[in-house]
Amino acid sequence: MNAIPSNYSNQIPFHIAIDFVIFGYDEEELKLLAAKRQSTDDHQQWSLIRGFLFKNEHLEQAAARIFKEIMGHSSAHLEQLHTYSNPDYESGTYIISVVYYAIIRLSDQNKKLPKDLDAKWFNLKEIQELIFDPENIIDKAIQDLQEHAKTIPIGITLLPDKFTLTQLQAMYEAILQKKLDRGNFRKNILSVELLEKLDEKDKTGSRKGAWYYSFNENKFNNLIDNGVLIKISL
Amino acid sequence: MNAIPSNYSNQIPFHIAIDFVIFGYDEEELKLLAAKRQSTDDHQQWSLIRGFLFKNEHLEQAAARIFKEIMGHSSAHLEQLHTYSNPDYESGTYIISVVYYAIIRLSDQNKKLPKDLDAKWFNLKEIQELIFDPENIIDKAIQDLQEHAKTIPIGITLLPDKFTLTQLQAMYEAILQKKLDRGNFRKNILSVELLEKLDEKDKTGSRKGAWYYSFNENKFNNLIDNGVLIKISL
Repeated sequence: MNAIPSNYSNQIPFHIAIDFVIFGYDEEELKLLAAKRQSTDDHQQWSLIRGFLFKNEHLEQAAARIFKEIMGHSSAHLEQLHTYSNPDYESGTYIISVVYYAIIRLSDQNKKLPKDLDAKWFNLKEIQELIFDPENIIDKAIQDLQEHAKTIPIGITLLPDKFTLTQLQAMYEAILQKKLDRGNFRKNILSVELLEKLDEKDKTGSRKGAWYYSFNENKFNNLIDNGVLIKISL
Repeated sequence: MNAIPSNYSNQIPFHIAIDFVIFGYDEEELKLLAAKRQSTDDHQQWSLIRGFLFKNEHLEQAAARIFKEIMGHSSAHLEQLHTYSNPDYESGTYIISVVYYAIIRLSDQNKKLPKDLDAKWFNLKEIQELIFDPENIIDKAIQDLQEHAKTIPIGITLLPDKFTLTQLQAMYEAILQKKLDRGNFRKNILSVELLEKLDEKDKTGSRKGAWYYSFNENKFNNLIDNGVLIKISL
């Protein structure tokens, strides 16, 4: 049982696809990147971004390569979500799809996608009606992202270096897809003691202004090195 | 980028392996099943149980088939853990390993394994010294199992239909790999209100005896149907 069956490789041509659920946060809502892909019955449909694994690379290397080809940079953390099998008995192909997800800060700059890629950013409601996703991969990625978002600092990278608690709350609301109570949010987020109040206010929203905060990355890394997992009640 | 590259399937013979982290609980400790496997340099070494995906089945079907071949029954819940890539440039093979884990109740009956399978149950300390596991798959499976165990009823299937709180605590201690405070454990586990005290005592441990409990599966399923996730503080 443990050895590769002797005629195994001739018999079964597997293709290893890497599919991406790429979320973008534009300081208002979560968006998702989808691309037009030829379906088996020769229609075009909106699908997850897809690339293929090459023999000279590991899965993580292929994921990073393809992500960079799409986005033009490689600064996001890619998280492996799940692996699906898609045999297509008619055409005789069998695709193994390893799904990764990432969340990036959607500034004007990375809204520009390679021109040869027929891809677009959708909001979540829109895309769930349009996309071909029989396995509910997007839902699963959102759930996983929401679970991870409660662990600082996954979301912090989506904000500028200095931010107000209102901006922080808006980000969590976009990821968790629900409104949070302002008082409880502030109490909970400050209780993990990883935010530093700066000596500066954002005065664009009101005359009184709102204090800017920054994330204390050193303190966070120290906690991680000591095996401490920080989880926010949200 | 979305289409399969034209010469892709001839070029790259991928083998899809399914590897298993199978935990067994024998009412004392967690054990792990490993099998002797031929390594690339022709030595035998203890490894995770492995099978291969066939073209006429989905990943989940293959996992269920292989699990049944090994264990002789198919009553465990198989959870997909992660997918790893193992190119072997010398031999020209490239194995994609999709890892599943399961936990079963280790009674005398299922200690008997198929004779043609050179497999053995090890305790966790023992196996981590013996096994070839450069990706730390076992650690990852334990962490995932521990996270899941806090959600009733993953562990309940490891106990008889009626059990004492002492038995229940021993099970959680085996999974979490740490001692729990007796008072806090009882308070926390009873607070989720899914255990029913029976009108019967276990008198084997002491003259006073310990009440038997059973798990209220109906109530649990009702909560799940209503989208309620029960999590125990442990």
